[in-house]
Amino acid sequence: MNQRTSFENTACSIARTLNIIGEWWTILILRDIFYKITRFSALREHLGISRKILTIRLNSLIENNILKRKRYQSNPSRFEYILTEAGKELFPVIIALKEWGDKWIYEGKEIPIILYSDKSSKSIKPLLIDENTGKPIVYGSVRADKGSESFQNEWDSLVKAVEKRRLNS
Amino acid sequence: MNQRTSFENTACSIARTLNIIGEWWTILILRDIFYKITRFSALREHLGISRKILTIRLNSLIENNILKRKRYQSNPSRFEYILTEAGKELFPVIIALKEWGDKWIYEGKEIPIILYSDKSSKSIKPLLIDENTGKPIVYGSVRADKGSESFQNEWDSLVKAVEKRRLNS
Repeated sequence: MNQRTSFENTACSIARTLNIIGEWWTILILRDIFYKITRFSALREHLGISRKILTIRLNSLIENNILKRKRYQSNPSRFEYILTEAGKELFPVIIALKEWGDKWIYEGKEIPIILYSDKSSKSIKPLLIDENTGKPIVYGSVRADKGSESFQNEWDSLVKAVEKRRLNS
Repeated sequence: MNQRTSFENTACSIARTLNIIGEWWTILILRDIFYKITRFSALREHLGISRKILTIRLNSLIENNILKRKRYQSNPSRFEYILTEAGKELFPVIIALKEWGDKWIYEGKEIPIILYSDKSSKSIKPLLIDENTGKPIVYGSVRADKGSESFQNEWDSLVKAVEKRRLNS
């Protein structure tokens, strides 16, 4: 990710998450690991990625506590890549991407892969809800407010950008 | 996105979705539009992005039916960028990214922005569930199976990559 702007110091959870996982290969590596393709050689073959890029991305995911390395063979040492707790919790991001693509790119038919609940023969129907209210979280159903006081400047610049639009319209 | 591999013809909803939105600026533009920053000048200022890159990204989002342009002023013409139905449905992706970053980058405290349900004074607690079973979708709770027959080759290569690991372990 060296060639691009870094969002490492931006006060935004989305920007900082993208700083770690916001890159095609990284998300596709995670997709494959979620599909239980965990070994270097298998990942490389399935992704059609160079050894160099795969190594860089895997190391970055390890540094960022999303994957850990686990030896499965000695002499020579061979490793597989296991999701940490933080890594496992990226599953909803992958599912949300898949759900959107299934619907808007494949238009709900001729989908390459179908996901089933382990205990059901019905395919899953992902829905993001607010656990507090039980209601779906959809565009227009939430409002944003300032979090910690230490991010007052970032909040002010957001409000200013939004107000600019309101004042003129 | 010209300089990188294209996943336009890959048989995977995730890869093809990333082909459209899998790029830092694109997701951050969507984030700002979800926050109701919809005008070119306001987006540019808030994102700190060049006019050229913003134009390219907005046009790509329009071509891919995620945004549409709406005139809000004549002489000179000025436009704002509105989410299409497909664009609105990317909201769960953004929320899932934010939720992960709030927890794993900010560790749940000192969060820059808090989202509230419109009808509640409690912050939202996003949870991805399977609408069919009502159960949370988490890593390990779903299994993948082949979708359409026309993607047999892709399915075979996935199975092969997974089996490779199983056979050796």
